[in-house]
Amino acid sequence: MTSATSPRELAHPTRDEIRLEEVLHALSDPMRLRVVRKLADAGEEVACAHVELPVTKSTQTHHFRVLRESGVIRQAYRGTAKMNDLRRDDLEALFPGLLDAILSAARRSAGATTA
Amino acid sequence: MTSATSPRELAHPTRDEIRLEEVLHALSDPMRLRVVRKLADAGEEVACAHVELPVTKSTQTHHFRVLRESGVIRQAYRGTAKMNDLRRDDLEALFPGLLDAILSAARRSAGATTA
Repeated sequence: MTSATSPRELAHPTRDEIRLEEVLHALSDPMRLRVVRKLADAGEEVACAHVELPVTKSTQTHHFRVLRESGVIRQAYRGTAKMNDLRRDDLEALFPGLLDAILSAARRSAGATTA
Repeated sequence: MTSATSPRELAHPTRDEIRLEEVLHALSDPMRLRVVRKLADAGEEVACAHVELPVTKSTQTHHFRVLRESGVIRQAYRGTAKMNDLRRDDLEALFPGLLDAILSAARRSAGATTA
């Protein structure tokens, strides 16, 4: 885990520290899957405030933290906004095809229940 | 969930009842991933007794139950043995490419840590 050197700098696992089990756990929650789909669709950094989840603010913060600490997303402060980006390159290098397979599955699942 | 009509018949979700989040949760554990790799490598039914995990018997039973209840494996009694099989067809129909991507990732992870 890279140490956070300032309160404004958030800790992230290095690529080598990312574990498959933790990535799967991070993605085993419908809200977190929704965040990841949103980031994948955006294809660029997205502010937390622009990801709408039907949960409280603190629960939303928790979900983003689980995604960051598992290595699925990278978070950084830009001014007053906390920005989020998928770690596509890291995940693809470690687990080729995994993220896309999960994103496809998530889209199908969402289509099968609520759009 | 198909109801278990006898103590010897185990409850399984139907294909339509299988949820992506539950499958990912089931696979987010190193012991359960190991079971799934073993079943994938075998390509046929495997008895619980032939899957060696470094955990207690009751923990092993728990892991198999999580895999069954999430729809990842099918379990059936054959005489005195409890047999296990991957639900490849169901998973592939619901989430194309997902199982293979996870199995590949699990093999790479296992190679990167313990062989």
